[in-house]
Amino acid sequence: MKKAILLIIDGLGDLPTPKTPLQAAKIPNLHKLATDGVTGMLAPVSRFVVPGSDTSHLNILGYDPEVYYPGRGPLEALGLGITLQEGDVAFRANFATVKDGKIIDRRAGRIDTATATKLAERLSIRVDHVQAIFRNSVEHRGVLVLRGPGLSHLVSGTDSHSPSGELEPCTALAPEAEKTADIVNKYTEFISGLLSSAPENKGREKPANIVLLRGAGTYAKVPGFSERFALKAACVAGGALYRGIARYLGMDVFVVPGATGTKDTDLKAKANAAVKAIEGEYDLVFVHVKGCDNAGHDGDFTAKKAFLERIDKEMIPILSKSGASLIVTGDHSTPCSRKAHSGHEVPILVYNDIERRDDVGRFDEIACPHGGLGHIDGKDIIPLILNLIEKAEKYGS
Amino acid sequence: MKKAILLIIDGLGDLPTPKTPLQAAKIPNLHKLATDGVTGMLAPVSRFVVPGSDTSHLNILGYDPEVYYPGRGPLEALGLGITLQEGDVAFRANFATVKDGKIIDRRAGRIDTATATKLAERLSIRVDHVQAIFRNSVEHRGVLVLRGPGLSHLVSGTDSHSPSGELEPCTALAPEAEKTADIVNKYTEFISGLLSSAPENKGREKPANIVLLRGAGTYAKVPGFSERFALKAACVAGGALYRGIARYLGMDVFVVPGATGTKDTDLKAKANAAVKAIEGEYDLVFVHVKGCDNAGHDGDFTAKKAFLERIDKEMIPILSKSGASLIVTGDHSTPCSRKAHSGHEVPILVYNDIERRDDVGRFDEIACPHGGLGHIDGKDIIPLILNLIEKAEKYGS
Repeated sequence: MKKAILLIIDGLGDLPTPKTPLQAAKIPNLHKLATDGVTGMLAPVSRFVVPGSDTSHLNILGYDPEVYYPGRGPLEALGLGITLQEGDVAFRANFATVKDGKIIDRRAGRIDTATATKLAERLSIRVDHVQAIFRNSVEHRGVLVLRGPGLSHLVSGTDSHSPSGELEPCTALAPEAEKTADIVNKYTEFISGLLSSAPENKGREKPANIVLLRGAGTYAKVPGFSERFALKAACVAGGALYRGIARYLGMDVFVVPGATGTKDTDLKAKANAAVKAIEGEYDLVFVHVKGCDNAGHDGDFTAKKAFLERIDKEMIPILSKSGASLIVTGDHSTPCSRKAHSGHEVPILVYNDIERRDDVGRFDEIACPHGGLGHIDGKDIIPLILNLIEKAEKYGS
Repeated sequence: MKKAILLIIDGLGDLPTPKTPLQAAKIPNLHKLATDGVTGMLAPVSRFVVPGSDTSHLNILGYDPEVYYPGRGPLEALGLGITLQEGDVAFRANFATVKDGKIIDRRAGRIDTATATKLAERLSIRVDHVQAIFRNSVEHRGVLVLRGPGLSHLVSGTDSHSPSGELEPCTALAPEAEKTADIVNKYTEFISGLLSSAPENKGREKPANIVLLRGAGTYAKVPGFSERFALKAACVAGGALYRGIARYLGMDVFVVPGATGTKDTDLKAKANAAVKAIEGEYDLVFVHVKGCDNAGHDGDFTAKKAFLERIDKEMIPILSKSGASLIVTGDHSTPCSRKAHSGHEVPILVYNDIERRDDVGRFDEIACPHGGLGHIDGKDIIPLILNLIEKAEKYGS
């Protein structure tokens, strides 16, 4: 079968304390693939650069972020299923609680999704000649899309992380963004009034009485994945960002019930969906799992180790029996000791039954630098896949 | 401590005869760091390129020499403590002996520094509208800076290496440099008269009766190191070039008594100065030692091995106990068998107590290619350090 499944384990890599989670975890199926396949180390962006999840995935999927990164807002908006139009400016948004001009809770008391959904329904309005489209996702999170002529993403966010917690107005970072900043401030003021009087906020200790914005970006259509690489690709992911990236690149997105984009996701369901897609019309399925990154950000070694063991037990047997080539790697390291992304490489393994092998028998940060792939960069992954499944065009003649 | 010391051992790498100096040397402290840290191989500029010390250091310190290399003259002038102004043209200079229009000694009988200093005091003069600033360093060496409007570095040197030994006039290599060539020739002629009649030259078999010039470059201010990388950096180096490079990048330079920039330098004093700086306000200290390169150029295997043993004994214990991360590498190979720089990689080790480790236990050219870092380039060093000390900005979100 000349097809491939690319499994990205978000935040995979770590630092030794004294073992890394990968070294400590019981992951016999991954070690078996490492034994039977070829391994190496991947710098998702480039050596020692600390990647965001967005830039890293773009780079791994063949889209140089220096050229194609639209900012976080549009990717999140696409992930929530909003169909964007050329020139739309999108922000990440979150419900927050403001009191006497100060942000007292950036998450509005971690408002529940159902209440947030009711509030969100009131927030798609017109401001001057601009259509504002608001959509919430999980808990306090959401996106705002502004649609109209002459908008610019070169505006500051209103999500102040300053210790004073002052609510900050949106300001233009370039002269052409004056109008957009003005729209954002009018919008923020108007919906603040709407939210304050909304019945859902009655009796809430921390009312969701404002929406904070960040990560502004302008949407522009990019050359599609199938057009650029002649591969029909699908995505299985729970997190909105990853679905959004896939849609941005023109991949089909499978929304799998139980795929939550968190640690409690249904990994078997995701693996089965991936295999179903690969058995169908797709040449490449990109599967994303988020749990290790969440655990790394929480500094929770045990949870990271446990999630790796779940992946090993619940996904790898299904994926490795599909007949497709399997590539397992991460989008960056999220060391538990740092509780943040780092610029350390992540292990990568490539398995099918006819590839070159190496003498590495473990899938971890210490063994894989000895692997036959050596040290590769995110930009190498699509050429690697095209070569692996014999779909690369010859360069020259 | 989220700080780092970068120790550059000039000319570190070598070729086996049948061992390399690193393989032959007793360097238990460096081997211990290799054991406890992570190793690899560094191409200071890029693979197989033979670096100059100037371009190599710029590249390692994050300044692409294709963009930022100002020529050797300005770097040497800054190293001698001359404050350069935008547009100054600087040359490397040396006192020489000329007779009947032929250079009979390029070093004026290796004139002593004290005599050269007295002669040098006469050589800062005005030529037309140009101020010439001359400063000597050690023995016959020095720099000439030309300051005035409309100067260009696109002129030939006067330091002929041709077998005939003819004194060659300075010629313009581009039309805009005609005036500069004319100034250089007037200057050379005028000071030749001054030197010939100087009392210090009386009775010298090889009078210092001319100054030869080479390595012309125009000074332009570059974006500062702290501005580009948000690191406060200091330099501990004996050699003028390395101090000059550090000043060019806006680093503070510590002039350590006993740091000579040669084989007899006070290595302990340099290590102690580096640790004092790192315990103070600095995030990064760049420490340079020159002795291995000198020995390599002399083809002196024994001296190179002995200098490595001195570094191991006199510097490494001090540096490795500072609490800062420690990076040890070189700026290029200077194989004793070649008596010249070569394009072979140099070993690199990175040590702190929370990093990934590898199973390499020796710091040499044969063990380190097996290290966990793999093969990296000079441009990777600053990202490596920023990631190591958790001061990297995330790329994306």
